[in-house]
Amino acid sequence: MSLKHYLQTNQSLVENTLSTLLPGGQEPPQRLNQAIRHSLLGGGKRLRPILVLACADAVGENRERVLPFACAMECLHTYSLIHDDLPSMDNDDLRRGLPTCHKQFDEATAILAGDALLTFAFELASRPIPGVAPETVLMAVRQLAMDAGIFGMVGGQMMDLLAENRMVDMEELQKIHQHKTGALIRCACECGARLGGGTEGHIHALRQYGSAIGLAFQITDDILDVTGNTQEMGKTTGKDEINAKSTYPALLGLEAARQWAAKQIDLALSHLEPFSRNADPLRDLARYITERTH
Amino acid sequence: MSLKHYLQTNQSLVENTLSTLLPGGQEPPQRLNQAIRHSLLGGGKRLRPILVLACADAVGENRERVLPFACAMECLHTYSLIHDDLPSMDNDDLRRGLPTCHKQFDEATAILAGDALLTFAFELASRPIPGVAPETVLMAVRQLAMDAGIFGMVGGQMMDLLAENRMVDMEELQKIHQHKTGALIRCACECGARLGGGTEGHIHALRQYGSAIGLAFQITDDILDVTGNTQEMGKTTGKDEINAKSTYPALLGLEAARQWAAKQIDLALSHLEPFSRNADPLRDLARYITERTH
Repeated sequence: MSLKHYLQTNQSLVENTLSTLLPGGQEPPQRLNQAIRHSLLGGGKRLRPILVLACADAVGENRERVLPFACAMECLHTYSLIHDDLPSMDNDDLRRGLPTCHKQFDEATAILAGDALLTFAFELASRPIPGVAPETVLMAVRQLAMDAGIFGMVGGQMMDLLAENRMVDMEELQKIHQHKTGALIRCACECGARLGGGTEGHIHALRQYGSAIGLAFQITDDILDVTGNTQEMGKTTGKDEINAKSTYPALLGLEAARQWAAKQIDLALSHLEPFSRNADPLRDLARYITERTH
Repeated sequence: MSLKHYLQTNQSLVENTLSTLLPGGQEPPQRLNQAIRHSLLGGGKRLRPILVLACADAVGENRERVLPFACAMECLHTYSLIHDDLPSMDNDDLRRGLPTCHKQFDEATAILAGDALLTFAFELASRPIPGVAPETVLMAVRQLAMDAGIFGMVGGQMMDLLAENRMVDMEELQKIHQHKTGALIRCACECGARLGGGTEGHIHALRQYGSAIGLAFQITDDILDVTGNTQEMGKTTGKDEINAKSTYPALLGLEAARQWAAKQIDLALSHLEPFSRNADPLRDLARYITERTH
């Protein structure tokens, strides 16, 4: 199966499952459910849930059992986008090619839609999974909370806000991104492996793989903010320079940033060496991350 | 032990535990951790965590094991206050006698502090508990997510926003409050009983108790918004009338609202009849809810 086909198939799977799991847009409170569906079902790469599925496949072809957890990852990611886009944060009008949640609805609704999605992620993640020990599910729920919160994504978002309008060095920039985007991508890989029935060795290797592709993903995002256009990206580009944000291209130059992303991909691939052909989608995904144009 | 002493002792226990569990105010990202500690440790009745502890005591004197879960309930409650106080929501300047989080810090920090506390609640709730089966912990985590999210507190907050500036009837008002404040209070009682080792009968009875006191608590809150003063309450009073909010006193009149709250307390006490003297703090708490002056 080509990667393009693999991505499309799994994007549809995740979107259809999310649409079924969430309350319908006509269910009360309507405005909240419509705002949630607007932000969650309006497109997106679905990278994090696909990583959960692909890691479960890589360790034992157990993707059905991790599907709710995969959807939880997308709920968490989408909540973070809704809150990041708010006027008091990044103040963005466009996301995934659509008006941002607070533009389409209003600020109060957007805050609540984010809160609801964050909470719903834990409702999905804490569902019992047939064939998986409850203590393993509990461990994944806790990992999710750690990687999404103060010590992970939210902490990284705060570090990012505190770094605005001043130059940071490579060490600090890397720390920000390991928290802001890295933590959730790493978590997707680790928990996909754990809930998929992987050994401790598998789990550790896939966590390392997740760290490397998470960093490569962020470097590529920074590069695309410089070289991409708003229409293709589905979000406002060129914002990092306007906001005087420290980025990899700004610190290293475009070409060195590209080389550094490529180095991370080599590292990610090396962590997949012990795995069989079942990990081929993960290999393709790693390469795709730096080659993508949006 | 008098109720006053019981409340003080348990408030201190919850606050000290929270202070130990959370990152210190000097830990990075400092601004986030300071905002969290400002809102979480700046006072409060600690009703929800105390209900968790008191319900665990009522079913089996197992309060130590539910302490992290009790703290999770307070994190969830505090996040909801931080987000409710934001300019685009209730736009409040004063909470628990202190400047609200966005007044003391800024809006972006307040949004992130709320997100961090919501996420941290699930980190605490999903910790393994010695002596409690992992599937029971998982059940409590999921209950928490249900009662805090679309089908509980967040849904209720949205209903409340949608009801502003129009008159709602008693049925709708009750539905709003069963979600907005009732769900979390009910959840505290149910999960305290479940994690404390209660039988299904205990759990059901304490859930009913929680429903009744939750309603009485909200009616009393509405009454105090009319009769209390800002200094004693530690938050702005008289706001419901200014915001043209439907409240119990507005719909029923003050005296009938008081009687209705008293009826709920009788109902709550009747659900405690099968319990021993260990449930006395719950009996005192029920009476205190309508008698409190702030």
